[in-house]
Amino acid sequence: MTNTAPKITAQQIKDSLPALISEALGDLKTSFRRMSPLENIVPDSLVYLLKDRQIEDVKKSSATVVIAKSSLKDQLKDLPKNQTWLLSPNPELAMVYAKNQFLQKTPYHASLEGIHPKAIVDASAVLEKNVTVGAGAVIGPRVKIGSGSFIGANAVIEADVVIGANCTIHPLVFIGHSCELGQRCEIKPQACIGGEGYGYAHDEKGNHYRIPHSGRVILRDDVHVGSNTAIDRGSIDDTVIGTGTKIDNLCHLAHNTVVGKNGLITAQFGAAGSCTIGNNFVSGGKAALGGHITIADNVQIAGMSGVTGNIEKPGAYGGYPIQDLREFLKTKAAMLHLTEMRQQLKQLLKRE
Amino acid sequence: MTNTAPKITAQQIKDSLPALISEALGDLKTSFRRMSPLENIVPDSLVYLLKDRQIEDVKKSSATVVIAKSSLKDQLKDLPKNQTWLLSPNPELAMVYAKNQFLQKTPYHASLEGIHPKAIVDASAVLEKNVTVGAGAVIGPRVKIGSGSFIGANAVIEADVVIGANCTIHPLVFIGHSCELGQRCEIKPQACIGGEGYGYAHDEKGNHYRIPHSGRVILRDDVHVGSNTAIDRGSIDDTVIGTGTKIDNLCHLAHNTVVGKNGLITAQFGAAGSCTIGNNFVSGGKAALGGHITIADNVQIAGMSGVTGNIEKPGAYGGYPIQDLREFLKTKAAMLHLTEMRQQLKQLLKRE
Amino acid sequence: MTNTAPKITAQQIKDSLPALISEALGDLKTSFRRMSPLENIVPDSLVYLLKDRQIEDVKKSSATVVIAKSSLKDQLKDLPKNQTWLLSPNPELAMVYAKNQFLQKTPYHASLEGIHPKAIVDASAVLEKNVTVGAGAVIGPRVKIGSGSFIGANAVIEADVVIGANCTIHPLVFIGHSCELGQRCEIKPQACIGGEGYGYAHDEKGNHYRIPHSGRVILRDDVHVGSNTAIDRGSIDDTVIGTGTKIDNLCHLAHNTVVGKNGLITAQFGAAGSCTIGNNFVSGGKAALGGHITIADNVQIAGMSGVTGNIEKPGAYGGYPIQDLREFLKTKAAMLHLTEMRQQLKQLLKRE
Repeated sequence: MTNTAPKITAQQIKDSLPALISEALGDLKTSFRRMSPLENIVPDSLVYLLKDRQIEDVKKSSATVVIAKSSLKDQLKDLPKNQTWLLSPNPELAMVYAKNQFLQKTPYHASLEGIHPKAIVDASAVLEKNVTVGAGAVIGPRVKIGSGSFIGANAVIEADVVIGANCTIHPLVFIGHSCELGQRCEIKPQACIGGEGYGYAHDEKGNHYRIPHSGRVILRDDVHVGSNTAIDRGSIDDTVIGTGTKIDNLCHLAHNTVVGKNGLITAQFGAAGSCTIGNNFVSGGKAALGGHITIADNVQIAGMSGVTGNIEKPGAYGGYPIQDLREFLKTKAAMLHLTEMRQQLKQLLKRE
Repeated sequence: MTNTAPKITAQQIKDSLPALISEALGDLKTSFRRMSPLENIVPDSLVYLLKDRQIEDVKKSSATVVIAKSSLKDQLKDLPKNQTWLLSPNPELAMVYAKNQFLQKTPYHASLEGIHPKAIVDASAVLEKNVTVGAGAVIGPRVKIGSGSFIGANAVIEADVVIGANCTIHPLVFIGHSCELGQRCEIKPQACIGGEGYGYAHDEKGNHYRIPHSGRVILRDDVHVGSNTAIDRGSIDDTVIGTGTKIDNLCHLAHNTVVGKNGLITAQFGAAGSCTIGNNFVSGGKAALGGHITIADNVQIAGMSGVTGNIEKPGAYGGYPIQDLREFLKTKAAMLHLTEMRQQLKQLLKRE
Repeated sequence: MTNTAPKITAQQIKDSLPALISEALGDLKTSFRRMSPLENIVPDSLVYLLKDRQIEDVKKSSATVVIAKSSLKDQLKDLPKNQTWLLSPNPELAMVYAKNQFLQKTPYHASLEGIHPKAIVDASAVLEKNVTVGAGAVIGPRVKIGSGSFIGANAVIEADVVIGANCTIHPLVFIGHSCELGQRCEIKPQACIGGEGYGYAHDEKGNHYRIPHSGRVILRDDVHVGSNTAIDRGSIDDTVIGTGTKIDNLCHLAHNTVVGKNGLITAQFGAAGSCTIGNNFVSGGKAALGGHITIADNVQIAGMSGVTGNIEKPGAYGGYPIQDLREFLKTKAAMLHLTEMRQQLKQLLKRE
């Protein structure tokens, strides 16, 4: 974050993202050294802009390069001479690529290379080329790790795990025996993939006996798993998370949960055993599903919702019990009048 | 899971479980090589059956051995020649025993034996016979570990901890100084047993000072603790989890919580400090107790419930505020009509 | 906890806490060997007392030294000869100091000293004097650790982290690259400080692309973080937790959250991205904030509340949707009558 950061020009951004930068307004030789958030723009920086209400603030700021939504073009008159605006159909995605290519430091990657001498890798494990293993990481028998993957310090990868290419397994992650990860998965620190499921048989005295869980956890390509999230292995069949699904911190996905593609499951979500969730599922924080629930494709659930029955139609839902989102918002509004309603009802009954 | 798995015969199951298999229908020489879930039956497999509505599906399937509830006997006519049905008063428990004895692979156990040369065991620690300690595990001074127990890779067991016989402490578990575990406990990865409690004294300026916690966490025999669950040590007295209680993932049990025997505490449960919970407690996902709550024996709490006062009678409860379960289910149903109720009330008031 | 614990006299307590012990009733040579909770007083022990209703119980008990609130003085007549009562304006705080100074065992500290030979400390890391590093801990390049700080076994401190003096980083903690901690911070086992934030850009096909997070997590002085809590790094700016704020177990603080001074954030709290929380914030268990919420100074939120809009005035609040606390308590009470209200309304409508 110092002034000695290298300069990147608007031209470089435009050239590297031909599909994402449709037009440039201003001098392509204009450069920046860092990114700024809109709320706190620092000199010599790149910002990105989605909404028109901040255009004037950005124009007056010390930002030098701006990535803005193409649809704002008509409002971009009289731009300051020292700013160059790059128009994009998807400024957020353009920023992701620009940041990854030109700006992002990844010290945990950059500072490590190869197998750390203090890593503990079983002789029967197969590591393809360009695999990094951090200090203290434990790689069990017959584990396979694809090329370019990174295993952080003190992570534990049990026997027979298969990890695809270009995965990032952060420090202190646990991956249980026989689980499988596709390519480009990222598992954040303290996540637990493939613990035994919480399933018990009971005797007549009320004692509980763990049902042994021989299923696996399968993460398809491009799955992300947050810190302190636990995904349990299946009892006989596998727990499966579909391609591209991103799971946030402190989530619980119980045994035999199946999630479709491209889901966005935000923090503190919980799914009890054997739920089947469709593609493009989106859940707000702290939402929960009971056991054996089926959710259709293209369902969104508001934060703090509790789902206790199947959801068969695509759409937005919320509440506990769950309702169509618009109905839930009305219920939520009505909740603020509950005391008043109770008093009104008492009055009405008195008058009878 | 290949076809080269060894064959197990119906006879072997029957012989090994005399109390759990009451009768056999079919040839006891019939064998299987794996288990199937009912939803996905594969050839040469064992399944178990609790309900009559799936009898016909199982009969048509490629399962070879079936463990079914004895009470279904009358409906088991015309069984296919290639299937053998074993009748049990408790098919689920029979399956647990059968799976543990004949089928379950435990690679994390099987692939390890003895003290890994990269484990870091304090010279004053006392490990009884047949203790396994994984790579990178750190065992502190004066720790005692009972015979047959397993300590996973990179787990940390602090000074003066006592662990009974035949416990499974998974990788990356933390057990704080002086805590005690009974026999056959199982602690899943990333669990934290015996962190300092969240208790603070405050000065007049609003600063907070941690109350030092000198109590321990005591887990009695057969306690299971889930991944990313935290059980804090007591402030002066101990936090105690009773014999046979099973705690799921991502639960929080604060300082001085006392839980009775054979509880089933499912995921994302929270108990604030100094709760006293009776025997046979069952809680659904995400339920919570406020501080200093007392719960009687034989209480069940529905998922997402919030308990802010004592529960003195056995029974099923739910909701926030908590109600008798039947009342709560009515409240939940009424919630779906809240908007309509508000409109009806407005109409009634207008007409006045 | 044996009788061989050293004796501490009432005189020692009084002398060491001149500002916190205002007066002594009884013989200052009276001594104790341990602390007792009020619910379970053992012989030769120290107890502390906040409320008058337990005075008689304590007088009859085998406690030898009592720290009691000064305001109770008038009720302290006829004290037993074998007890000495120390009066304090803040007995709880007096007890914290007394326990820390005379009683608390910290085996994880006491049993360790210096850099464990099995710690893995990068040659470029700078450790000031009296730093302790446990076995298996991994300290990355250019890390700076202030004097007197403790890093537990198997913790992972990534590159460029700065840790102030007298911090306690418990075993198995993760601190991500470039994060900064002030003095006297305490991070409990399995916490994750500085994981990547959960922020994604999306393409037109519904694929998600992680926004790289280059911000840091900054913990000011005296911040405590609970077990299995995750605090994510900011996307461009930093995530910042103010001086003296204490965070309990299993909390989620997303990217760019800013929390003021002296907050008390209890277990299973969740804050979605970019929330700004004022000073002296207090939240009950399982409370949650949506994204981009601003909370004023001196706000308290009841347990299980859900906040989806800004809170601009100091005060106590509760519920989902959030209400003034007194209103919420009425709403909560009314909820118990919802079924009855529905029936009454049906009756009224019938009579129309």
